[in-house]
Amino acid sequence: MTAPIAAIILAAGKGTRMKSDTHKVLHPIAGRPMLLHLIDSVKALGAEREVVVVGAGREQVEAAVHPLGVETAEQAEQLGTGHAVRMAEGALAGFQGDVLILYGDVPLVTTETMRRMLDALHGDGGPSVIVLGFRPVDPGAYGRVIVGPDGRLDKIVEYKDATPEERAVTLCNSGLMAVRSVDLFRLLAQLGNDNAAGEYYLTDLVELARRDGRFSVGIETDAIEVAGVNSRGELAMLEQEWQQRRRARAMVEGATLIAPETVWFAHDTQVGRDVTIAPNVVFGPGVSVADRVTIHAFSHVEGAEILSGADIGPYARLRPGARIEQGAKVGNFVEIKKAVIGPGAKANHLSYIGDAVVGAGANIGAGTITCNYDGFLKYRTVIGNGAFVGSNSALVAPVTIGDGAIVGAGSVVTRDVEADALGIVRAEQQVKPGWARKFREAMKAKKEAAKK
Amino acid sequence: MTAPIAAIILAAGKGTRMKSDTHKVLHPIAGRPMLLHLIDSVKALGAEREVVVVGAGREQVEAAVHPLGVETAEQAEQLGTGHAVRMAEGALAGFQGDVLILYGDVPLVTTETMRRMLDALHGDGGPSVIVLGFRPVDPGAYGRVIVGPDGRLDKIVEYKDATPEERAVTLCNSGLMAVRSVDLFRLLAQLGNDNAAGEYYLTDLVELARRDGRFSVGIETDAIEVAGVNSRGELAMLEQEWQQRRRARAMVEGATLIAPETVWFAHDTQVGRDVTIAPNVVFGPGVSVADRVTIHAFSHVEGAEILSGADIGPYARLRPGARIEQGAKVGNFVEIKKAVIGPGAKANHLSYIGDAVVGAGANIGAGTITCNYDGFLKYRTVIGNGAFVGSNSALVAPVTIGDGAIVGAGSVVTRDVEADALGIVRAEQQVKPGWARKFREAMKAKKEAAKK
Amino acid sequence: MTAPIAAIILAAGKGTRMKSDTHKVLHPIAGRPMLLHLIDSVKALGAEREVVVVGAGREQVEAAVHPLGVETAEQAEQLGTGHAVRMAEGALAGFQGDVLILYGDVPLVTTETMRRMLDALHGDGGPSVIVLGFRPVDPGAYGRVIVGPDGRLDKIVEYKDATPEERAVTLCNSGLMAVRSVDLFRLLAQLGNDNAAGEYYLTDLVELARRDGRFSVGIETDAIEVAGVNSRGELAMLEQEWQQRRRARAMVEGATLIAPETVWFAHDTQVGRDVTIAPNVVFGPGVSVADRVTIHAFSHVEGAEILSGADIGPYARLRPGARIEQGAKVGNFVEIKKAVIGPGAKANHLSYIGDAVVGAGANIGAGTITCNYDGFLKYRTVIGNGAFVGSNSALVAPVTIGDGAIVGAGSVVTRDVEADALGIVRAEQQVKPGWARKFREAMKAKKEAAKK
Repeated sequence: MTAPIAAIILAAGKGTRMKSDTHKVLHPIAGRPMLLHLIDSVKALGAEREVVVVGAGREQVEAAVHPLGVETAEQAEQLGTGHAVRMAEGALAGFQGDVLILYGDVPLVTTETMRRMLDALHGDGGPSVIVLGFRPVDPGAYGRVIVGPDGRLDKIVEYKDATPEERAVTLCNSGLMAVRSVDLFRLLAQLGNDNAAGEYYLTDLVELARRDGRFSVGIETDAIEVAGVNSRGELAMLEQEWQQRRRARAMVEGATLIAPETVWFAHDTQVGRDVTIAPNVVFGPGVSVADRVTIHAFSHVEGAEILSGADIGPYARLRPGARIEQGAKVGNFVEIKKAVIGPGAKANHLSYIGDAVVGAGANIGAGTITCNYDGFLKYRTVIGNGAFVGSNSALVAPVTIGDGAIVGAGSVVTRDVEADALGIVRAEQQVKPGWARKFREAMKAKKEAAKK
Repeated sequence: MTAPIAAIILAAGKGTRMKSDTHKVLHPIAGRPMLLHLIDSVKALGAEREVVVVGAGREQVEAAVHPLGVETAEQAEQLGTGHAVRMAEGALAGFQGDVLILYGDVPLVTTETMRRMLDALHGDGGPSVIVLGFRPVDPGAYGRVIVGPDGRLDKIVEYKDATPEERAVTLCNSGLMAVRSVDLFRLLAQLGNDNAAGEYYLTDLVELARRDGRFSVGIETDAIEVAGVNSRGELAMLEQEWQQRRRARAMVEGATLIAPETVWFAHDTQVGRDVTIAPNVVFGPGVSVADRVTIHAFSHVEGAEILSGADIGPYARLRPGARIEQGAKVGNFVEIKKAVIGPGAKANHLSYIGDAVVGAGANIGAGTITCNYDGFLKYRTVIGNGAFVGSNSALVAPVTIGDGAIVGAGSVVTRDVEADALGIVRAEQQVKPGWARKFREAMKAKKEAAKK
Repeated sequence: MTAPIAAIILAAGKGTRMKSDTHKVLHPIAGRPMLLHLIDSVKALGAEREVVVVGAGREQVEAAVHPLGVETAEQAEQLGTGHAVRMAEGALAGFQGDVLILYGDVPLVTTETMRRMLDALHGDGGPSVIVLGFRPVDPGAYGRVIVGPDGRLDKIVEYKDATPEERAVTLCNSGLMAVRSVDLFRLLAQLGNDNAAGEYYLTDLVELARRDGRFSVGIETDAIEVAGVNSRGELAMLEQEWQQRRRARAMVEGATLIAPETVWFAHDTQVGRDVTIAPNVVFGPGVSVADRVTIHAFSHVEGAEILSGADIGPYARLRPGARIEQGAKVGNFVEIKKAVIGPGAKANHLSYIGDAVVGAGANIGAGTITCNYDGFLKYRTVIGNGAFVGSNSALVAPVTIGDGAIVGAGSVVTRDVEADALGIVRAEQQVKPGWARKFREAMKAKKEAAKK
């Protein structure tokens, strides 16, 4: 028996310390805006409503979340967290259920922790407010979560108002809460702002619930999970934390990462079993790597599908739309874009293959380039099964090299080459005996003359 | 006076947590299967017999060790470590001397530590069993090595059977032992399996020796040296440990590693003095780097010999058979395979030089490609001393460019160019005035039309 | 009211543990010799005189510092630090003011710390000697700075001469001092060498000052700031420390470093706001990066100016003299040397552009190479605004491609192409039907025959 779930995500802060034209919550982690990581986790929970409370830079945030069916509510004035949550009341009109209160700049909270908060809300005695606490290495000036002798929350106390005994408490307030909708807005309406800052503090809910004859409970999680991002340094730390989790998962699932600290995954990278990933590999979004694939050092892979047994790199760049089929090989200084490299085909050296289909077992010589663009439109190159494209060739699309055909080295192919034929574009070789010696002598003389 | 040495290496475990079709002990560290690292260290000790006890996946292990003259013995059933060691008895028939008991998944034990174990076996009073202990940061559930008031080993106690006092002991059992052959199999024959798991525990040797009126001694080493690999995460940790040792050694020997944590050595890399290695350099097996070489960032070097004063990278890929001679330069996006680059020669940009000999002082222009493969066979290119190969040339092997010859830019050279000659393959340049403007206008009109 | 400032920098040590032909203090950090980092910090202080005390390898040091207007003084014999400082007396003849005593192999002392030392010299009671202390994690065998009950320095005691109480002191002596010139050489003249090593110890100044009725004061700084370099391992540690400071500063100033630990700055790199730097980017000296630039993974940038909105990499190599203008794009496996890439121009794939000017909005096709070198001289290529250079072209400089001109794919352009014209160099395409099949059959037969 689960109640409907809603999430209110606060994202109205300015993020001045980021020094950025991009809204703080839209800075990416693993190639995806941090706010969307949080929304992903909320959606995985099965939430039926999500409201992001926006303020400065609302247009950017709305453009990012509206396509996901997430609502926004505006907090025009910065009057505190309690005030911010209240701004979501209209958007949640008619909603009856459990409400999670989250922060757009605290992006790594897991679905599991959210679930634990909601479960606690339906725990013994039916608490009214669940507060998520954590124990940082240095509790510093965080607000403290004070638990009474009955195990229930006594209060959340700001560090500056805390007694020495309270400061000695190591459980700190993350700001995240779970509250039933029937309680939330009723209690919020009672919030006052009789404090030095003149702000409405969400943490006062605990006290208000108590006055109401209800009680609150604290649950606990790792400090890193509730770490917030207020600067690019903190952003880098959460990126690293995310990557470390993801690398560990890849290894558990059966991939060898020779130097895990040098592999960067994107939020949606899929990696199979008995995959080997060498040092220094970067994944952009949209990649799936099947079993028994090897990705050598210095490879950069984005929007690509790599089928089983393929061999990638070193220095391979796979761009969106690349599909490397079974046992195919993409070697060094090779760029593949929107192209299929068929089973067992090879493009081993210094090539650009774009808007193309390369057949099974075909061999693409070093320095081959598909000329897919004329400055206006893109055109397609088709290379047949078992074809052999000689080194340093340019294939001017649209063009087809038939099955089993050969293209002579250095050719600029502008017309189709039929199956099993040789296509060649080449001038006669001329040799001018002694020319090089004379040239050298002339140049040396010129250099000598220039010195004088 | 040293006794003959034998080593028994246990490698019968399944390694399920690796999630791999490759046997656990064959997963590589620094490009060499971990089991072979251990065997290398044993061989450095001067051992005259090595027996690997195999079980699941024995074919893979045998294929790896038999070529090294290492024997195998099968443990068909998994009946405990004591049972596993017993399986080696037949293979060691006739051997008289000291026996080291090692583990294929504990690969970084040094020859020096093995030596210390053997020395201890011949130490005061002639102990019967030497147990290698370590002190982990968190002793957790490791078996404890209990030392009596006389400094001799009292027993090895499993964590679950240990008293609180015993659990407070921080010296843990690595499982590694040294035992005289005359004692080993006699004591093993007395091992029982009267325990919950019904297994024969090697650690019971300590107790059996005592009953026999003999005694055991514990010696100690670093935790990292006896760390085992049961998962790919642990494999990555040992890889890192190995790399850190190797990087430190390279620096001690006179190489500058600007960012040591980003240089990956192979098991056999040799590095000279006053070598500079920039960030992000990967060495595969079979590389030697002479003095005063600079290797720039993002270079990938395997099976290559780099002579003094050479300058490599950035983004240089040296493949097996590359030999870069004194003061030669291999620059960015250049791949060298099975080729000699002569003294002072340069291949600075975007080239593939394979199956070739490049003479002293030759200059290989940007984009030069040796066409060494016709889909069936490989052919050789010879470029003479002081030759100058113009940019974007393709040299169709077999072909020779003579000493001091020049190849004109963009040529596809199919016939030899004699010494001091100019070889050139080039069509006439044609210019069509206004063509580009008309093309642009036509394409724009086409695009406009397509929009309507 | 500030006194004139002089700095004496000791750099006479041999640096044997570096195992290098390069003088220890000339080994680089962030691409600049460590000694010059220190001199930069001294010059930022407004010092009017700098004297480096040299010994072994003095020629190398002098060649590095004389061009900066820094004097040198020779210490022919290694008779201790006190003796070394005395050697600078002649070079400072006539100087009246404050003297900092620094060490060429302690390169990361900040200008701010130097300023604090000088300020302390003019502090309460006018101390005669300021000693810079630090508290290492492990004080080990460092000399201890002993402070008396009056807060003044009692003495500096060598570890080996220290009492247990003195050894318990955690403030250690960095060796750095500030002394007024009027005191310095007068006190130095009184230094004795009545000790086991027979050396003149600078630390004795504290005692001498006291005998003179004067006093000394200790001030404190971070251990890392006064860390010295005696080995390549320590060099790597200071490189890392320097890089970490610099990365943090870049992030504070508004750049996103996705993986800060994999970005290497040079001593003079300038980075703007809303710049994104992907993992694995290496900066050499002389780089400025304007706002809103993206630098993708595996890029290597040296001596280059990148204007706002430009997009660099992955695998872009910018060499000295590269200037990438607004919104221009340099893509993968592209090398730019001494060339301007105009606003909005693109060189996306596998190209070498050297000694060139590329006009606004021009498109450089994949595999384009400027042939700028004939083995003797370098020549210039000019590509006009909006020009389109087809793939795999070689532009043989000196050559001009006019505004709006098109170069056909695979052309070797040796003569200028006028504006709006098409320039093309290409032989006729020939097709030989069935040739490839026959070739394959012949080669297979040949291979078969070879097997027999």
